[in-house]
Formats: sequence, structure tokens, C-alpha cells
Amino acid sequence: MLIVMKMDADAKQVEAVVEVVEERGLKAHPIAGAQRTAIGITGNIGIVEPALFQDMPGVLEVIQVSHPYKLVSREFHQEDSVFEVAGVKIGGTDLVIMAGPCSVESYEQTLEIAKIIKANGAHILRGGAFKPRTSPYSFQGLGREGLEILARVRQEVGLPVITEALDIDVLDEVAEFTDIVQIGARNMQNFTLLKRAGRCGRPVLLKRGMSATVTELLLAAEYVMDQGNEQVVLCERGIRTFADHTRNTLDVAAIPAVHRISHLPIIADPSHAAGYRDKVVPLSLAALAGGSDGLLVEVHDHPDRALSDGGQALLPAGFKELMDEIRGLAPVLNRRLPEYATS
Amino acid sequence: MLIVMKMDADAKQVEAVVEVVEERGLKAHPIAGAQRTAIGITGNIGIVEPALFQDMPGVLEVIQVSHPYKLVSREFHQEDSVFEVAGVKIGGTDLVIMAGPCSVESYEQTLEIAKIIKANGAHILRGGAFKPRTSPYSFQGLGREGLEILARVRQEVGLPVITEALDIDVLDEVAEFTDIVQIGARNMQNFTLLKRAGRCGRPVLLKRGMSATVTELLLAAEYVMDQGNEQVVLCERGIRTFADHTRNTLDVAAIPAVHRISHLPIIADPSHAAGYRDKVVPLSLAALAGGSDGLLVEVHDHPDRALSDGGQALLPAGFKELMDEIRGLAPVLNRRLPEYATS
Amino acid sequence: MLIVMKMDADAKQVEAVVEVVEERGLKAHPIAGAQRTAIGITGNIGIVEPALFQDMPGVLEVIQVSHPYKLVSREFHQEDSVFEVAGVKIGGTDLVIMAGPCSVESYEQTLEIAKIIKANGAHILRGGAFKPRTSPYSFQGLGREGLEILARVRQEVGLPVITEALDIDVLDEVAEFTDIVQIGARNMQNFTLLKRAGRCGRPVLLKRGMSATVTELLLAAEYVMDQGNEQVVLCERGIRTFADHTRNTLDVAAIPAVHRISHLPIIADPSHAAGYRDKVVPLSLAALAGGSDGLLVEVHDHPDRALSDGGQALLPAGFKELMDEIRGLAPVLNRRLPEYATS
Amino acid sequence: MLIVMKMDADAKQVEAVVEVVEERGLKAHPIAGAQRTAIGITGNIGIVEPALFQDMPGVLEVIQVSHPYKLVSREFHQEDSVFEVAGVKIGGTDLVIMAGPCSVESYEQTLEIAKIIKANGAHILRGGAFKPRTSPYSFQGLGREGLEILARVRQEVGLPVITEALDIDVLDEVAEFTDIVQIGARNMQNFTLLKRAGRCGRPVLLKRGMSATVTELLLAAEYVMDQGNEQVVLCERGIRTFADHTRNTLDVAAIPAVHRISHLPIIADPSHAAGYRDKVVPLSLAALAGGSDGLLVEVHDHPDRALSDGGQALLPAGFKELMDEIRGLAPVLNRRLPEYATS
Repeated sequence: MLIVMKMDADAKQVEAVVEVVEERGLKAHPIAGAQRTAIGITGNIGIVEPALFQDMPGVLEVIQVSHPYKLVSREFHQEDSVFEVAGVKIGGTDLVIMAGPCSVESYEQTLEIAKIIKANGAHILRGGAFKPRTSPYSFQGLGREGLEILARVRQEVGLPVITEALDIDVLDEVAEFTDIVQIGARNMQNFTLLKRAGRCGRPVLLKRGMSATVTELLLAAEYVMDQGNEQVVLCERGIRTFADHTRNTLDVAAIPAVHRISHLPIIADPSHAAGYRDKVVPLSLAALAGGSDGLLVEVHDHPDRALSDGGQALLPAGFKELMDEIRGLAPVLNRRLPEYATS
Repeated sequence: MLIVMKMDADAKQVEAVVEVVEERGLKAHPIAGAQRTAIGITGNIGIVEPALFQDMPGVLEVIQVSHPYKLVSREFHQEDSVFEVAGVKIGGTDLVIMAGPCSVESYEQTLEIAKIIKANGAHILRGGAFKPRTSPYSFQGLGREGLEILARVRQEVGLPVITEALDIDVLDEVAEFTDIVQIGARNMQNFTLLKRAGRCGRPVLLKRGMSATVTELLLAAEYVMDQGNEQVVLCERGIRTFADHTRNTLDVAAIPAVHRISHLPIIADPSHAAGYRDKVVPLSLAALAGGSDGLLVEVHDHPDRALSDGGQALLPAGFKELMDEIRGLAPVLNRRLPEYATS
Repeated sequence: MLIVMKMDADAKQVEAVVEVVEERGLKAHPIAGAQRTAIGITGNIGIVEPALFQDMPGVLEVIQVSHPYKLVSREFHQEDSVFEVAGVKIGGTDLVIMAGPCSVESYEQTLEIAKIIKANGAHILRGGAFKPRTSPYSFQGLGREGLEILARVRQEVGLPVITEALDIDVLDEVAEFTDIVQIGARNMQNFTLLKRAGRCGRPVLLKRGMSATVTELLLAAEYVMDQGNEQVVLCERGIRTFADHTRNTLDVAAIPAVHRISHLPIIADPSHAAGYRDKVVPLSLAALAGGSDGLLVEVHDHPDRALSDGGQALLPAGFKELMDEIRGLAPVLNRRLPEYATS
Repeated sequence: MLIVMKMDADAKQVEAVVEVVEERGLKAHPIAGAQRTAIGITGNIGIVEPALFQDMPGVLEVIQVSHPYKLVSREFHQEDSVFEVAGVKIGGTDLVIMAGPCSVESYEQTLEIAKIIKANGAHILRGGAFKPRTSPYSFQGLGREGLEILARVRQEVGLPVITEALDIDVLDEVAEFTDIVQIGARNMQNFTLLKRAGRCGRPVLLKRGMSATVTELLLAAEYVMDQGNEQVVLCERGIRTFADHTRNTLDVAAIPAVHRISHLPIIADPSHAAGYRDKVVPLSLAALAGGSDGLLVEVHDHPDRALSDGGQALLPAGFKELMDEIRGLAPVLNRRLPEYATS
């Protein structure tokens, strides 16, 4: 923490700040500049709030410097984290493609789409059993039945599955039936859920909240890791801005920003960022070119009949096109699009 | 929903859209303009996604018109909702002032602050027992012990209390010990929690999420009301923007916007919006002048020792000043700052 | 500037940063903390870019501390700036109300509205002769003719006038015909215009840009003041956010934020913030309660025939109501709504 | 425009709206839905403001449908616009790379950098002679001398040049000395400058404003085209959001959004979006993968001595790496990175 004093702050005022700092067992380092004095603070900064000093006489501004993350940080773990989910590698050089319908609507639909995405080279099947919907009058997902369908399709098609746990009441079920537990953007700071997810025994995909900074995303991951779960993959899915040509604004730069600070893998969800099908392929390619370790993308064979978000789902032909593009793109980016032997 | 066709869209393309609309049991109303055709859709719009039409040949744009809220809407309930919590009126002409520490830290601290706020005319005691904190390494609240302290202080001082339920695992406890259940900004779209809160038997204070639109806030309230709970009070607590002189940007206009659409009361939380003590009084007065039905404000007698957010808490003297200002302001705004007989 | 080193940065890396700092004639102050070292920099910081150090080995983060404004700052001028425009005080305890049509449309319309606002206690007549319009096909203002109308109405009604100078080509004319030169939100960083406005011989009203921070607003004012013009009044008119219930989001907190840092007066424009008439009065009162030194508000007697922004203009009856409210509010806020003797 | 009536609006209220519409020579099309009536309006919508109807009895909401752009629209010009600048193609399949220092600092520096970027395959030299700087105390550019240096280097190295015209007072000079006139983000809605740029006889590169929607960007281009200048290239350079890991948030999706609506080419400026050197290459590749027609990128041989924005400039080695990556990427994206014969 750095406390910047006003130009006309006198020695007593500087002294008073130093005292408050030292009362807390921290150390104050006054730096006298040409025009003003600043006071650096070292020690276990976490316990003081910057605004504490804001109103003290002579204080102009308080600046936070602390870096509160530990386990997620490259300072603690230099190499990229790589882990395997049912034989599929996440992180490192390999790209991972998770695809499927927004919602699990029926066994037939899910099976059909799973076959399509597998045939085109996707590695993991996504599909929502519990759906977070803005309105209570929208389709809320099949629930438990959806989980069972996913498990059955997983068996038949041989793809690991990922689905969202909306809250702690369904977390165990979700963990039981699926390979990766997804925590959605609206729950990124549902700290109770994060802690439990840290003990659920499954890898966790954590989506960035619509208005979360990269620091907040990493601290949310820190909640999961702090409970002993090291298998966390982050997901950039667009942030909320004034821009109205997409549902959210895909913040591509968050990908290299995460890679700089953290060892955790990060993938992108171009479907929720775009909101419109025609922007899904360009955003997918942009995310990968920007360093994304994979994609989470919606595919539907009959989007016009989808019970949620049909308009942003790629058609099978669009998904094929996307995978073909990725196949060309990967080597140029020094990445690999793995083809696993059919299980 | 309104579908705007391209200028060169031909009759067949218009026809195709009409067909898709009618297949879903809805009605299409083509409007031929000078330059282009638009197609209005009526019926149970909720079941179609706008993006469905986005890619159809000849379609330029799809515009949503639907108003998905019911129970929260003034169209369904014209008069302002007013309800009582342990003798304190919320909504209508009376202003309600909820004040207290960010976190319940000890019995002594809570009692002391409760006495101060009561002496200055506050109506409800706030204090967090479960704290949502960005970092897992920050103080997370006293939990159950905090609830017991609140209940004890409630008894002794004679003020109803409000505290936050972080998730469904503590909701029943919170409802048992307190008069109003608070749902925090980070949980505004924790739909599982919203549904349970709708059945918890207590009034609910619902804070606007940091990146939530007014429509989304109202739909979150709709989740609570849809479960039978009509006692919902909304809270504007600042949105996330690029502006960096406050922690969040208090969106005063959300208050008249809510009042226009909904019958529910809405109060403001100037403390979390400001982030800095020196802006709490101006934002409080601004919110009230803008039509807020009350305030939720942090007060601490020793903010420099507070375990969370001390820098944004008003000192007792600052809270007294605020209440004096409100006492002058209320009649000018045709509002009343009630003084209840001591219970 | 403060340079934060990585935890594993070694002495050589710290040394290298110190060297780069000193090469530029600045002074480096290393602060060794428990976990990492930070390096404070003092001297004429303006000449180094923070990103300079970003890529040096061992550097984690570079934090800017500099406060680049001088003339606008309370550190250089402690008292509130107050100045007079044709007998009307701006700044200090007195509120100033500037009102009138969005655009000057005709002599009759302008005269009529000027009489209405004067009768209700406004101090300054506003009206656009040159209009910044998003589309080239919208009404662009009457130009020179509009200025002449304003001057004529000024004479007849006895109110000073304010109008916008869209760019340097019309600045002199605007300065010739009006009492205050307005620089619009879209021009807040038109530095050529700012510099010339600093030499135009008239007070300048400078609107905050839609995405400008308070720091940027103050630095824009610094451009004007740096040319010798000390009569600058700032204007908060709403920022662009995701919120869609108003055209812009009135950032009330910017008002106390400016008052804390700067001695310049700041008023609010509730009309452009709201975008809709029904929110103009609540936002006006909120701004004043938040500390605004006045208002810039649109009034039209026939808004349904207005050539621009009719929907956000108050009707004469609405303006009367607003002024009545302000008359009640001002004393409660320890402000004065002056009534000048008719000139 | 679409006017949505309240559920309890009666026939008279609908009638009243229809009347107001027809008084203006427009046509009203009432659509009776199950729950409410909506009224479509056709005709020359440009002349009515939506807010006009907002306060009429029975009106719930007014929705704008109009598409105010003409010349920039694909509806008016279906094929991609492609034009040549001194032999360099902009638009279509070919990528165009504009590179160079943020500011022209000296003849030697500019020459040196021009040679480096040319050797690596860039097509156009960028460099600022007039610099828009947030603070009046920052380096403001060499002005006329900078233009002369650019012209001299252009001659010697054989690359066309682009530089910014800060306002109309220097536009003619800029147009005289350079091949493309740049209009910066802060001037995107400097309509006086846009109009003059439309008559300056040079192609115009128009940067998106920090808080501009795609619609506003296109309408700004419409200002230029409306004056007869068809050679406009747009530039996405990042928007202002709450995200703090980059200076601005590169809105990659704006690129396909522009391509969908408009025939104009659009390139990206990863340097200003990033603000930090280490994110320039990932953002460059992301923009190209997302469909960008080229890049505008900062390169400096001694960024630590740069007079502006040194920290975001690529070093020569970084630029070489970028160009090598693009060379690999282009064919995968079905684009061409042209190599022109040395002039």
C-alpha cells in the first residue's frame, strides 16, 4: 500500500500516518519527493483497508499495491498447469474443444448432437441440466433427468461431459454424473459454492463474471484451490459493456493477462459472448489466436426449436467449418488439436 | 418482438419469417414501410428467442419488445407496495434508515453501534454475519455467532435487524434470527437462493448486481415473488463502470426507473457505492432527493479497527450529521422520517 | 510512480530498474517488504511512461501515482473559485440555473422560452446554435442565425446566454455573441478547441466526456486554464454504461469528487443524462443534493415540435415545478437560489 | 419506431398516439396483441424523437428501429470497398499493415524505424506529428516539422504515410504531406473535422471513439462519405470498460459487426487497446483471426526513450515476430499479406 500525502502536508501529519501504520504491526517507509511525500507500507497488508487512511489530515490518496492471490499465481507455480479429464488434456500446448447444446432437452437431442460434435473432433460434451435464466418463466432445465441423460450419452458416445452446478444443493449430483463441474458467470462470486466446488473431487470450469476483473476471477479460483482442488480451468465469456452489437464484449486480452499472472489454463466461450450465431466463428478464432487454451461452444442441430439460446448455437455445418478452421489454425499458433483414439 | 427486414428483402423472405412465427402458434403482423418491411409478433413471446430469426434470409435485425415481469410490475399492482417489519414501515411516504457496521465483530461493538444509530433515529440495524469477500484470505464473518449477537442486540436495543444470507445453507438460520433477509449484489442472480428466499417467511432486501440492468433486477425480484413472498425491497448500491473516483457508480436514475415500472420500494446503499467515507453523505442525500425510499448505510465507531470496509463507514458524528440533514430534507421532498415509540 | 517487483526478483533486477530511473535524472527509493521489493520514484515523473518498466526482468507491476493537474487543483488554490457572468455568480454558495431549448429554432420560440424560464427564476439562457448530431441527416442547428437570435433575446429578456462552440472555426463568433462558451461532451478532449477556448476571453463551461474519468475532465480544464482563462465551470452530464433505462448514467459522485480535488465549480445536466423527461426532475434534485453548484436543463414549450431532443425537455409546467422544488431544497442544503434584480 | 402501449391503455390513448404520428406526415400501424397494443410507425422517421411519445398517456415504451446510415451500409453497396493508397490496397482479401512510432521525434528516429518496418513487410508508415495528450504538460508532437520529416522519410524509404489531423486548423497541411489522414478516437464525433475530412482529397482512417457504439462509428463515417469521400477505413482501437488489465478493451466482435452492416474496411490498433507491449502480439493475431483487414501498430527502436507511449510500442524484434506470425496466419484465414515491389 502506498499513501500519497498532499503537497502542503506537514511533518506531523506524515508522523500520524506512520503511527497508525505501526500500531498495526506494519512498517512505514516515508519517501520524500520534490513536491510531496509518499509512504510505502510493508508487512501483512491484507489486514488494513486502504480507505482507513483516506480521511487522515494531509492524505491525498491511498493506492493499493497488494497481490492477494497465492495458489493461482505464477509466482507460486511457474509452469502452466496441465491436467487430464477422462483422458483429455486441458492446458499446455493442446487445445480442448468443449461443445454441445445450451440445454439438455432430451436423450435423442443430446445423443444426436454428441455424435455430431465428436465426429468433428470435439473432446468434451457440454450441456446444461440446470439453467440459470433471467426470468422465472423461462425453461429452467431438466434437472436430475438432464444429468442422467448426459451420463447415458457420455457412455454411448465416449466423450467426457461438463455441466453447470447452479448451487450447492445440486453440486454433489453434478459431480457424480459429470467429469467437469461448471460454475457459471453469475456464480463466480458465490463463495459458498466455490468452497464446496473446491472439495467436490472434480475439475472445475470457472467462468468469469460479467463485471469481474481478472483479479477477481483469479481470486475466485483461489477460493476453489484453497480447498485443495488444483484442477481449475478459467473461461472468458464476455463482459458487460455499453457495446450493443453483441450480447457481451469478449475481452480477448483477458487471456494473455491471465497467462501472465497465473499458471491456470483459460478457454473462451464465444457463444455467450456473441449472442448471435454469425459472430461465433470469428470470436472463436480470435480467442484462439489470442492464446486461448480451448473453446466452450454451443452447437444445436435444430436451434430454431432450442429451449434456450438457440440463436447463438452453431448449426452442425457451422461447427464443422469451425473445426476445420481450427485444424488449420492450430499449427500456426504452435498449438495442437489432439485427436484421441475412440474410447 | 419486432423483426426488421432488409431493404431488398423480397416477399418470399417476409413470408418465410411469417411462417416460422406461425408454426410456433404466434401471430405475425407485417408492416410495410417506405423503405423496408417490419414484422410485429404477438402472442406468448416468451417461448421464442430473438436470435432465432437473426440468420434468416432478408432479416436485418430482431428487436425484443417483451416485458417479461408480472408480479413486480405496476401494470399488475398500481399502488406502491408498503409493508411493515416489526413495526417499521417500508415503502410509501415514510423513509426507512437501516444502519450499522459492515460486519458484526463482537457483542460489544454491535451493541454500541446499535445504540448510536438508534439514538440518531435509524429504524433498522444492519450488520453482516456472513461476509462475501473477494479474497478467501479476508475475514469471512462470525457466522452463526454473528447471528446470535444480532438477535441479542435486537432484544436489548429494540431495533429490528437485517443481515445477509450468503447462500441456501444459511438461509433458514438467517431467517430465524433476523427480521429481513438480505440478498447481496453478487447473489442477485443466484436463482436457487432467490427461490428459497421466496419461501423463507421473511421480507427480502434484494441488492442490484454490479452489472445488472433494472430489468434484470426486477426479474430477480420476480423470482422471489413468484414463490409467494410479496415483501421485497430493492436496493441500488452502485454499478461497475470505468469511473474510478468511487468504488462503484451510484446509478441514481435507477430509483425513478424502478418506481416507474414497479410498485416495489427501493432504497440506496451509499456506502458500497462510494467506497470512501467522504462521499457517503452526498450520495445519501442525492439518493433521497432522487426518490429513494430509504438508505442502507454503514456506521462504525472505530472504523480504523473494523474487520471489513472500515474506510467507507460513517463515524458516529458523521451519521448524526447525515440524520440531521435527512430530517431537514424529508419534508421538502414530501417524505416523512418516522420516529417510532421505543419498543 | 511505484514499481512493484516480483517475489523472486533478485538484487540485480532491482539494481537495473534503479539505473534506468536514475539515467533519467529521477530518484529511486527501493522499499524492501516481507515478500517483495517496491521502488518508489520521485522527481519530474511526467517525463516517464509507466509501461517503460513493465517488461524489465523482475518487474511485476508499475503503478502511477502522479497528480498531473496543477491549476485546477485545490492544492494550488484552496478556496472555491467563484466568478461572475453578466452579474450572475457561478460557484460558491449560490446555485446557478441555466435553462432553455436544446436548439435555437426561431426567434419567437427562443424569446418565448426565455421569458418562461426567467419568470421562473432561471439565471442564464441556454440554446444550441451549432448542434453536434450523431447522424449527418439530423438538424444541425441554425448556425450564425442562431447566435444572432440568442443575442437579440438576451437583449430583450435580460438574461446572459450560453451556447456551444462546436469547433475552432466558430469559436470567435460564439464568444462574440454569448456570455459563456460551452464545450460539449464530444469535444472534451478536442485539445485544439480547449486551447483556443483558453484564449477566447469568455468563461467556459466544459462538459465531461461520456467516457472520461474525473482526472481527464480536470486535465481538460487544465488545458483551458493553462492558456490564462481561470473562469471554467465543469458539467457532469452522465457517462456511458451498460444501463439502459436512461440515455446516460448520471454519475452524481463525480460532483463531490471534483469538489474534493478542485476549486472549480461543477454543475449537472440532468436532461442529457436522463434522455427522458420523467427522470429530469429527480436527477436535478439528486445532483443538487449531491453538491452540484447548479443545473443546465432543457426546457421547451412545444417539445413535440422540437427539432432535437424534444423528449428530454421539460415543459414549462415541469420547469416551474422544478424551480419550486429547488427553492425549497436550497436552504436545506445551505445553498442560495439567488434572485437577481431584473436588468 | 415502435410504440408499446400499457396493458390497460384504452382505445382513446392509442388513438391519440396515432394522431400525433399522422400530424407529422407519418403512418401509424397499430398491432393488437394478446395483452397490449403496439404501434409501428413508418415514413421519414428521422424527424421524430422517440422520447416524444414517452409521456403520452397509456404509453409504456418507445423503441427505435431506424437505421440511419446510408452510404456506409451494405444495403446501398453490397461488395466490400477496396481502394488503393499509393499502390497499397486497403480492403478486400489483402491485409494492410501500418506501423511506426507513436510520435515522430526526429528525422533519424523516423527513418530508422521506417526502414525496420519496411524490411519486415509493413506497407504504410504511421507516426504522429500532432499528438492528442490528456495533459497539457505532456509532449504535444513536433507539429509541422513532424509532417516534413514524415514526407522526407516517405520519399527515402518508399512507404506511404499516415498521420493524425488533430483538428481543422492542420487538416490541409496533414492532407498535403501524407497519404492517409487519420482521425483519432477523441475526434470521432468532431463533426466539423469529419465534414472537412470528407473534402480533403485523401483517404481517411477513422478510429472508433472510446465509448462509441458501432452505429455511432458508422454514422461518423457517414459524415465523411456524405461529403463525397468514399475512401474511409475504420479502426477498432479498444473501448473503455471497467477492465483494468489493459488500457482499453479490444472489442474484437466490432470487426465482424462492421463487416455485416457495412462495406467499409476495418483494421485494428492493438497498441492503444493493449497499453502494454506484452499484449500487442496476442491482440494483433486475435484481431486478424476475427476478420480485421489489417493493423495499425506502434513500433519503436528505443521505446525507453520514446516521448509518448513507449511502453506499448513493439521493439524491432517483436515486430519481426509479429510479421512472421502474420505471414503464417494469413493463408489460414484466406487472406493475403501482400509484398509490393519496392518503389
